[in-house]
Amino acid sequence: MRNLKLTVTYDGTDYGGWQTQANAPTIQQTLETAIQSITCEPRVHCVGSGRTDAGVHALGQVVNMFTSTRLDNATLLKAINAKLPDDIAVLSIDDVSHSFCAIKDAIRKRYRYVINDRRVPDPFLRRTSWQPRQRLDEQAMHRAAQYLKGRHDFRSFETNWPNRLSSIRTIFDIDVRRDEATVIVEVEADGFLYNMVRSIVGTLYQVGRGYWPEVKVKEVLELMDRKEAGPTAPPQGLFMLHVTYA
Amino acid sequence: MRNLKLTVTYDGTDYGGWQTQANAPTIQQTLETAIQSITCEPRVHCVGSGRTDAGVHALGQVVNMFTSTRLDNATLLKAINAKLPDDIAVLSIDDVSHSFCAIKDAIRKRYRYVINDRRVPDPFLRRTSWQPRQRLDEQAMHRAAQYLKGRHDFRSFETNWPNRLSSIRTIFDIDVRRDEATVIVEVEADGFLYNMVRSIVGTLYQVGRGYWPEVKVKEVLELMDRKEAGPTAPPQGLFMLHVTYA
Repeated sequence: MRNLKLTVTYDGTDYGGWQTQANAPTIQQTLETAIQSITCEPRVHCVGSGRTDAGVHALGQVVNMFTSTRLDNATLLKAINAKLPDDIAVLSIDDVSHSFCAIKDAIRKRYRYVINDRRVPDPFLRRTSWQPRQRLDEQAMHRAAQYLKGRHDFRSFETNWPNRLSSIRTIFDIDVRRDEATVIVEVEADGFLYNMVRSIVGTLYQVGRGYWPEVKVKEVLELMDRKEAGPTAPPQGLFMLHVTYA
Repeated sequence: MRNLKLTVTYDGTDYGGWQTQANAPTIQQTLETAIQSITCEPRVHCVGSGRTDAGVHALGQVVNMFTSTRLDNATLLKAINAKLPDDIAVLSIDDVSHSFCAIKDAIRKRYRYVINDRRVPDPFLRRTSWQPRQRLDEQAMHRAAQYLKGRHDFRSFETNWPNRLSSIRTIFDIDVRRDEATVIVEVEADGFLYNMVRSIVGTLYQVGRGYWPEVKVKEVLELMDRKEAGPTAPPQGLFMLHVTYA
């Protein structure tokens, strides 16, 4: 058996998220079906580094899977991409040790959230950004975001807390910048709680539109109550960017 | 009555082109329906600077329409955009003289064609580029394209010639450049024949992938026969960019 590490990109618009479920097509299921048709194995199981929600995208989702195929990785890459629908693509395939697990061995993940704040909507960004049609102060958002850097209990930014044993995480880097009408939020952490990036973005949005002072983000964090934070930003702006392994 | 000039952008993927037809939703029809619901007029007629085909996009389609609405242009813009589906947006509205006609008064039009030649497909560009998955020589394409500059009979680049009284047009500018894995072809002319940009791109593609020498483009032009040119490039890479009026 071989253990393969795949880097995968997808436009999540038309999927019910990463994980296989009964009532909607998912990325995992679509990928497994394409791979099985190439390797001719009855069942291939793809482990993703994390579950992306319905409508969320990936530029660098990492997946591992065990297979006994003898196809070389370049041939496999081409064959799988030929089978996949055009909103999912495999970027690279590498052999890794049998002990590698895409979810357990991830030590850092980086997400990007894209907001387009042009007053007139942009049809070409509707599937890949949040368009609140309201000009945002990205510098205030960046300053406010720095309160979240470091090791904290992030339960104020978790939907339906508690989902995990602990809601303590470490944010290594959080950055808000502008590129013309696009405001880009990037967050890198050792792990994320359910809807954590989207509720952070919804909170920074309240600062960016001048509704909350910057220091309110610090207060929200300290109050440890999801009701204190801003709204959960919609899924179409979120991209899983990069996963780091030890 | 007022005559209004609208600049419109759209993702044409899900439409049967600009012009109203019976068997598919069109941009014209969708725009007219949205405007009628705002101005409360029984029939508004939008004249476009040119008909874009099914699946073709616009960043700056120009439209004119007569209306008796008393709404100011900023209010009208906001109201129409609120009614339009999110793949169409009006960028600006201006009052113009009654004699202005978006189609007859256009003296130059500029189109962009986007090719992404990354070997692995890019899910985020599948609706807005042609992805032949074959590396192209954009400098050879640019040099070959220069044979088309100037006033010529372009019937070699017209589908189902003749569609118009004359197939003589003047190309003022034609340019091929690369931005990472994206090859951008831009053509500006006093007018275009049916599928002219797409058959020019299909011909330059044969040069870019090394199948034809650059001088073949000159020969195709001189032979005045559509069968000599390359394939018609697919619609999803084409954007109406800009229309110039006297």
